[in-house]
Amino acid sequence: MNLFGPSLERLVVALRCLPGVGPKSAQRMAFHLLESDQTGGRRLADALIEALDKITHCQACRILSETDLCAFCVNPKRNHSQLCVVEMPSDVQAIEQTTAYQGLYFVLMGHLSSLDGIGPTALGMDLLAERLDKNEIHEVILATNLTVEGEATAYYIGELARGRKITVTRIAHGVPLGGELEFVDSNTLSHAFKGRQHL
Amino acid sequence: MNLFGPSLERLVVALRCLPGVGPKSAQRMAFHLLESDQTGGRRLADALIEALDKITHCQACRILSETDLCAFCVNPKRNHSQLCVVEMPSDVQAIEQTTAYQGLYFVLMGHLSSLDGIGPTALGMDLLAERLDKNEIHEVILATNLTVEGEATAYYIGELARGRKITVTRIAHGVPLGGELEFVDSNTLSHAFKGRQHL
Ligand SMILES: [Zn+2]
Ligand SMILES: [Zn+2]
Repeated sequence: MNLFGPSLERLVVALRCLPGVGPKSAQRMAFHLLESDQTGGRRLADALIEALDKITHCQACRILSETDLCAFCVNPKRNHSQLCVVEMPSDVQAIEQTTAYQGLYFVLMGHLSSLDGIGPTALGMDLLAERLDKNEIHEVILATNLTVEGEATAYYIGELARGRKITVTRIAHGVPLGGELEFVDSNTLSHAFKGRQHL
Repeated sequence: MNLFGPSLERLVVALRCLPGVGPKSAQRMAFHLLESDQTGGRRLADALIEALDKITHCQACRILSETDLCAFCVNPKRNHSQLCVVEMPSDVQAIEQTTAYQGLYFVLMGHLSSLDGIGPTALGMDLLAERLDKNEIHEVILATNLTVEGEATAYYIGELARGRKITVTRIAHGVPLGGELEFVDSNTLSHAFKGRQHL
């Protein structure tokens, strides 16, 4: 039991659901909210409830969205013939911070994982297949992570697209720009060698 | 505007009221709650509202408490003749993690600061004076921080107590146990010299 009662204890425990927050930071956060920023605390509770109530997934691409179709899917300025497939909405965020891509997205919300029992249906592959059947997509760009699961997922989607005669590409992986070889991990480096191109 | 709509944007902003959370971590936290732990998010919102609604300050010592009198003030096993004065409830937490102290507390919720317009009334000095007038306290232990404001606050309370012929002590400050001199900051070190005692 917490020195200051069960509600404070519950708050400390609840704060630990946040990534990177251990018992010490959770306690510091709880004290801060109660001692110095009750307004911030209420605003956070309201924002949490509002976000959890309102935010759902786009019916076309599964991106986090407050509307049935997301801002990407309804934007006529985006290239509707390119579809970039990513694992998570945060991947979309990262890609959008560049201006390298102007097409649409499809968010799997994970990757194939027999270990965790995550199959094609959980990843919305039916929806993706329907989407590809509409003949609007000319290129599927695979941007799943470079992990065993991410690669297996990319392979699976590649087959879906190729079966429909749609061009399939995979974003390049290798040594990051400005990355010094000695600081690049060996997986990335071996991938950079395998993916070497003729000059 | 956030890529994924105003609710997500508001959640990211709201999360930044947490100490140590910058824009990047706030975004990571928001994605995590929406993508992977909606249950945790709802539990956090509920815990926040419950804590903010229920937790108030003990009427006798201003510690965070869900009841009019806190668990310390109603505990007959504590020494009711000693009163340790601290700035924040988190200080109580730190002291209670030792078993060095078995008396009661008084929490100022801050320190005297002419800069921030915080005077004796805001710190509950009236309540403290009334408490001292009851002749139950035989020793006031000053555990405010070793800052200009903390020292000024300690001095003020020392006067309150001495005026009522109550023993006043200040917790010792100096080099921490196991602390190597070269890693101790110079303020602490100079304090350790000034506070040196005969062997
Ligand atoms: Zn969409
Ligand atoms: Zn109390």
